Amino acid sequence: MPFTEAREARDPHPAAGPAAERVRRYLGVRHTTLSLAEPLSAEDAMVQSMPEASPAKWHLGHTTWFFEAFVLTALRPERTPFHPAFGYLFNSYYVAAGPRQPRPERGLLSRPSLGEVLTYRARVDEEIAEALERGMPDGIADILELGLHHEQQHQELLVTDVKHAFAQNPLRPAYRPEPPRRAGAPAPALSWLERPAGVHALGAAGAGFTFDNERPRHPVAVPAHALASRPVTAGEWLAFMEDGGYRRPELWMSDGWAAAARQGWCAPLYWLEDGGRWDQFTLGGVRPVDEAEPVAHVSWFEADAYSRWVGARLPTEAEWELAAAAAAPDGTFLEDGRLHPAALRPREGVSGPRQLLGDVWEWTASAYAPYPGFKPLGGALGEYNGKFMVSQLVLRGGSCATPRSHIRPTYRNFFYPDARWQFTGVRLARGP
Amino acid sequence: MPFTEAREARDPHPAAGPAAERVRRYLGVRHTTLSLAEPLSAEDAMVQSMPEASPAKWHLGHTTWFFEAFVLTALRPERTPFHPAFGYLFNSYYVAAGPRQPRPERGLLSRPSLGEVLTYRARVDEEIAEALERGMPDGIADILELGLHHEQQHQELLVTDVKHAFAQNPLRPAYRPEPPRRAGAPAPALSWLERPAGVHALGAAGAGFTFDNERPRHPVAVPAHALASRPVTAGEWLAFMEDGGYRRPELWMSDGWAAAARQGWCAPLYWLEDGGRWDQFTLGGVRPVDEAEPVAHVSWFEADAYSRWVGARLPTEAEWELAAAAAAPDGTFLEDGRLHPAALRPREGVSGPRQLLGDVWEWTASAYAPYPGFKPLGGALGEYNGKFMVSQLVLRGGSCATPRSHIRPTYRNFFYPDARWQFTGVRLARGP
Amino acid sequence: MPFTEAREARDPHPAAGPAAERVRRYLGVRHTTLSLAEPLSAEDAMVQSMPEASPAKWHLGHTTWFFEAFVLTALRPERTPFHPAFGYLFNSYYVAAGPRQPRPERGLLSRPSLGEVLTYRARVDEEIAEALERGMPDGIADILELGLHHEQQHQELLVTDVKHAFAQNPLRPAYRPEPPRRAGAPAPALSWLERPAGVHALGAAGAGFTFDNERPRHPVAVPAHALASRPVTAGEWLAFMEDGGYRRPELWMSDGWAAAARQGWCAPLYWLEDGGRWDQFTLGGVRPVDEAEPVAHVSWFEADAYSRWVGARLPTEAEWELAAAAAAPDGTFLEDGRLHPAALRPREGVSGPRQLLGDVWEWTASAYAPYPGFKPLGGALGEYNGKFMVSQLVLRGGSCATPRSHIRPTYRNFFYPDARWQFTGVRLARGP
Amino acid sequence: MPFTEAREARDPHPAAGPAAERVRRYLGVRHTTLSLAEPLSAEDAMVQSMPEASPAKWHLGHTTWFFEAFVLTALRPERTPFHPAFGYLFNSYYVAAGPRQPRPERGLLSRPSLGEVLTYRARVDEEIAEALERGMPDGIADILELGLHHEQQHQELLVTDVKHAFAQNPLRPAYRPEPPRRAGAPAPALSWLERPAGVHALGAAGAGFTFDNERPRHPVAVPAHALASRPVTAGEWLAFMEDGGYRRPELWMSDGWAAAARQGWCAPLYWLEDGGRWDQFTLGGVRPVDEAEPVAHVSWFEADAYSRWVGARLPTEAEWELAAAAAAPDGTFLEDGRLHPAALRPREGVSGPRQLLGDVWEWTASAYAPYPGFKPLGGALGEYNGKFMVSQLVLRGGSCATPRSHIRPTYRNFFYPDARWQFTGVRLARGP
Repeated sequence: MPFTEAREARDPHPAAGPAAERVRRYLGVRHTTLSLAEPLSAEDAMVQSMPEASPAKWHLGHTTWFFEAFVLTALRPERTPFHPAFGYLFNSYYVAAGPRQPRPERGLLSRPSLGEVLTYRARVDEEIAEALERGMPDGIADILELGLHHEQQHQELLVTDVKHAFAQNPLRPAYRPEPPRRAGAPAPALSWLERPAGVHALGAAGAGFTFDNERPRHPVAVPAHALASRPVTAGEWLAFMEDGGYRRPELWMSDGWAAAARQGWCAPLYWLEDGGRWDQFTLGGVRPVDEAEPVAHVSWFEADAYSRWVGARLPTEAEWELAAAAAAPDGTFLEDGRLHPAALRPREGVSGPRQLLGDVWEWTASAYAPYPGFKPLGGALGEYNGKFMVSQLVLRGGSCATPRSHIRPTYRNFFYPDARWQFTGVRLARGP
Repeated sequence: MPFTEAREARDPHPAAGPAAERVRRYLGVRHTTLSLAEPLSAEDAMVQSMPEASPAKWHLGHTTWFFEAFVLTALRPERTPFHPAFGYLFNSYYVAAGPRQPRPERGLLSRPSLGEVLTYRARVDEEIAEALERGMPDGIADILELGLHHEQQHQELLVTDVKHAFAQNPLRPAYRPEPPRRAGAPAPALSWLERPAGVHALGAAGAGFTFDNERPRHPVAVPAHALASRPVTAGEWLAFMEDGGYRRPELWMSDGWAAAARQGWCAPLYWLEDGGRWDQFTLGGVRPVDEAEPVAHVSWFEADAYSRWVGARLPTEAEWELAAAAAAPDGTFLEDGRLHPAALRPREGVSGPRQLLGDVWEWTASAYAPYPGFKPLGGALGEYNGKFMVSQLVLRGGSCATPRSHIRPTYRNFFYPDARWQFTGVRLARGP
Repeated sequence: MPFTEAREARDPHPAAGPAAERVRRYLGVRHTTLSLAEPLSAEDAMVQSMPEASPAKWHLGHTTWFFEAFVLTALRPERTPFHPAFGYLFNSYYVAAGPRQPRPERGLLSRPSLGEVLTYRARVDEEIAEALERGMPDGIADILELGLHHEQQHQELLVTDVKHAFAQNPLRPAYRPEPPRRAGAPAPALSWLERPAGVHALGAAGAGFTFDNERPRHPVAVPAHALASRPVTAGEWLAFMEDGGYRRPELWMSDGWAAAARQGWCAPLYWLEDGGRWDQFTLGGVRPVDEAEPVAHVSWFEADAYSRWVGARLPTEAEWELAAAAAAPDGTFLEDGRLHPAALRPREGVSGPRQLLGDVWEWTASAYAPYPGFKPLGGALGEYNGKFMVSQLVLRGGSCATPRSHIRPTYRNFFYPDARWQFTGVRLARGP
Repeated sequence: MPFTEAREARDPHPAAGPAAERVRRYLGVRHTTLSLAEPLSAEDAMVQSMPEASPAKWHLGHTTWFFEAFVLTALRPERTPFHPAFGYLFNSYYVAAGPRQPRPERGLLSRPSLGEVLTYRARVDEEIAEALERGMPDGIADILELGLHHEQQHQELLVTDVKHAFAQNPLRPAYRPEPPRRAGAPAPALSWLERPAGVHALGAAGAGFTFDNERPRHPVAVPAHALASRPVTAGEWLAFMEDGGYRRPELWMSDGWAAAARQGWCAPLYWLEDGGRWDQFTLGGVRPVDEAEPVAHVSWFEADAYSRWVGARLPTEAEWELAAAAAAPDGTFLEDGRLHPAALRPREGVSGPRQLLGDVWEWTASAYAPYPGFKPLGGALGEYNGKFMVSQLVLRGGSCATPRSHIRPTYRNFFYPDARWQFTGVRLARGP
């Protein structure tokens, strides 16, 4: 079943009213995932280039299984699943939902075919749409809402996993033509936004959707500090490299130095040296590094070393969130279609922090941990966030591969300190 | 480019005469490879389930590259290769032919697509066919001949690699429907064929094609011994298992015991216990083990332990070749389309060894080593066989996945003693 | 040079006065290390049972090198080191102090002999004592003070590393006879100490010695919570085990479940099942688990899973420190010579938390990170604490192998969440 | 118990006659082992520098256990073993004799102490000596004889394992002072000893002691060939290195090239580059490479690559044995105390092969396999040789660390093709 059919099959709901609106919203999010997969051949959609990444086909199946397992089955426990093995194949990590395909072996699944997975999506979407039209109990509607945010997370992962997969191919294929881009202008000078010490509330309150890990809102003592007005640029990163940043152990955490040696890091992921010039592999193919762009694809270890080199530090998530609460979003998001962080345009007469949302996820100094009073969701969905709350670091702000409607100032992402394949960058802080 | 087109494109040579005959032979072998790939989707053709196995698409590309690199380039050194990167992507291990895609990462190559590889095949076949019609210098014709035997080796590997790939998929897909099969009749009783001690000639002589490793013919002192009339059957193997064969270290080589423990062996590869009954995964799907069939997918370590358990030993390659020189071929080959070893039918009034050729490769007691006076081919093709002549064991006779025209009594195959994914079985010997 | 000589050589300072007092203090700490090594043969002192542990001989040499490299060389830069290779052999991880013996290969050093290392100690001690008598510049006296606390840390590591080494030996040797012990009495009931929400100061202030990582003192918002009156006991841990605690993934962090599976955890380290009864290996040999003792040798992952099972959580380091600031120390320390956590004796009329200091290090929920305004020491000693401030968890309170004079309420220890060979235990918290 | 006491305790047998002779022979061999361990401290005797090597203390215990388990227990089944755990600790690989200490963890055994192991030796020696005086049944006397040859094998391993252990120590300790040595004279020119094709008998016959793997004597067809008159020298190896021998994949087996890359080989083991000059670590410390010495400490992979570089090949074991049967022994053995291969002195008027026995083990082209009709010993001792007969290569001739009385022309040693820590060298062959 080609992509077009799959999409048409799922858009028969032109009616007005709140139910139709709910259906439109659901299908809109689901449609975005399909659009992201559309430039891929069935072969492209099968590649798993490392255990941490998943094939695009698996993302398409897994997000569908999420709605089937947690929404459709909750609505009609007696319902026969679309396929008896899809629970096994497309469960990611929900131990309570049963055994599953080992993560590093997702790339071996030539069957089901991409076509079968698209049919699976179409069928589940139809059932969900009908259910939405009929109306849904509140508890289940909440899970559906969670499923849509879950789908958006996988949109970003699909993009970053494809980038990693294509980067392994010596043909260096482009995912799609690179959109036109303003190059050559330097980034605005970095300035520092001061904030005196105080006790502030951190985390989400109120009725809008958030993940469980953003709650409850709680007081945090924040020291006097200054936050950088914009992310670190590729040009600034080059200066770090030229000053021996990757060869000076005194700048690095002990574990970071070991990771850099073991993996041979000497530049951000996807940077390629070509006769003294630095190119980078992007989703539009290989092109020169643009010094005005925010640097991306650096690990926490590198971000931390860079901040020490420059005499600063990474911000805590509280410091970051305080700034973001007041900032106007001016970053690049998935909807912009660039799939690459963009150089910041100068903006007259504005002094607030820029690109806090969008462009690059910003590593914080904060370990990922439960907020005081954290309550995970009930049942298998309690595994969504809580069981990862150790050994990872919080990132904030979303990236050029994050849907605009998905991100918010209280949003907490998390990765291990050596992860580099996301669009991860650096915002500095100083003080006290 | 679908398979049909690819095939038609390459069959425009209805003329008669020796040149047309050469073309027909070439296209016949090449066509067989395509037929073997035809049941596979582009996704199936991408799976690499372990470093030792390769995706079907890679086999299709590599065998084509062999003709391009060693035949077309030799004919016209100024010729522009079909694609500048295919030398890198499809070189297997010829160091003299340049750098290459790391073997364990062949499964990451979603590009070139299967269609592009089929086009590559069609173009190279056209060029080769034209060159064959024009006539080819002897030295290059010899390489072309080698290329056809090389292609046949990859036909077998394509089949065994697909079997391994599909076996990893929890859906247990069938490569094609299983052909009808006579089941239930017991295998003929095993008898022993005695031979007194003597000095015999081993290896190939004469003008027909052989690999370099089969030459030169040379004398070998062979002790008095007896060779089993047929391979060990699955039923006999079950008796070994039931007698604790996999749990008795005294039956095993030290390295074999360690390999069995490390990999958790308790039955041949692809055997699946199902409530006390043994099933097996075949290229036609899962079905019960047939006790009359030759056992397959056992490593040398297992074959060796079995032979010790039964009070016998594995034959040397000299003992095996002496018997094979005189035997009538009555085994199962690739052309039979079974892709599984077949139970032996009783044959009245015949006392010679049976199934020496076909059905299962038979592990020998002989380490793979050069014959006295061995001369490897010149240039990059000298790497074809010679550089593997240590740490592997010789197998003889071909299997149900070997083309009939490819195998002969002097043929030497070789694998590491823990390899199990080929159709490898056991013939016993005794004495002196 | 036997231990006695070594000790005598270093005690010729009977004079009175502040200089003599400083010498006595220095030699006292150094003498304790020797006493701990004294039950060991030269062979015992060589064992390195895992990369994370070090041979006792290495501890003896490394602590001496610390004084030589950072005190004696600072006093007299022109001084010839005791041995040209000892800097290489006995540097632990100070990159700025030069290259060093790879950590996992410390156990290969049969040379220098234990005798030579004892001589090295004696010589360095003599030089230090003389320098102390002459008087020392303040900056260097501070480093000497740091060296003594460093020495005390290695006293604890020496003990825990010997325990791990002896536990690998099938003879299960005792380090020394087990001291008499009160067994059989149950632990006092656990009660909860409530504290309302508030902003409190965390960390060290004032003039006494602390490590750099305990500073600066800074405000922290602490939620309303309750802290357990005593650590979890071995008997309570048994109940967790009997309720399937090690087999229920829903209780575990994702990384913890993987670690438990990989390493086969089903009880605390050093617990041995013997026909349905649980014994444990201690420094006094193998003896039954005493249910009233605090459980020890559990990883953070286990502590976290246990706390979830019991419907509680681990305390943050702020919660812990607030309680400890006011508590009377009543735990077991190195000086007690038990080298094992002791069952708590009931104490009439006292309601405060018990065993906060001593017996077992208590895992907290807090990731090890710099306090706001953290300033590492200058030079190579800046590597002492700072470069480990990621991926580890804070432990508080010291253990039965910690010198009493070494521990204090603001003290921060840190280990990876899978570490088990220290005397690590669990204190629970609840709320908000 | 110091070495002297241990030795005296075992030498109270001054009487004459065949029994006394047997006792003297037994104690003589046992005494040699002690002498080899005597330069070692208890700490030295504990080092295990890789899984393939064992601590000297373990060799001392294991060889004693061999006599206890296979001789004393056979004589008196009711006898109480010296220590209940020594069977576990000192069994090497005899599965039939029970479970054992994992090989890679032999270096963790600080207990039993070296003194206890020496006492163990003394006690077992006393018991054996008494039993020998009383007279022993033939079957058991045969095992005792085997035990003495086993002891001699461990004498060589003790020496090579100590060399490997000391080489890991940055202090580069000398095992004992290097004996005086004639340096500077070039090696005699290499000549070739021709032999026409023929069928010859290979292997041992007759009544003297041999291992089971040397039997039975059997015919082998040997091609016309020439054998080098002496081993390859270090000077010749330098020429190979200078010609890029370690950087030219076309010279290497595929597995060898991978091993060389993985382990970073660029010279024989123990060679150290020092400012353009090559030194080597010997049991007498570091000294310059002597170009006239036979090269040692090269793997089969290196030996094979060298022979290809020079246009020759390695001899088969049949070719080697034919030459050795007639050659006069003129090599260096353990008794000479050099513990290093010696440069060959010119010998007037003699044309036969030299240094066939002694100096360096010579890699052959022959895989280690059973001779036709091979019968392993009965019981646990059947594991002595037979279970290693796959994946290893045969070496012949003994080395400077082999006792003269231990080696003979039919002796078959065997190692994996990447082993380098034995005194392994190269003799070339050519033809047919």
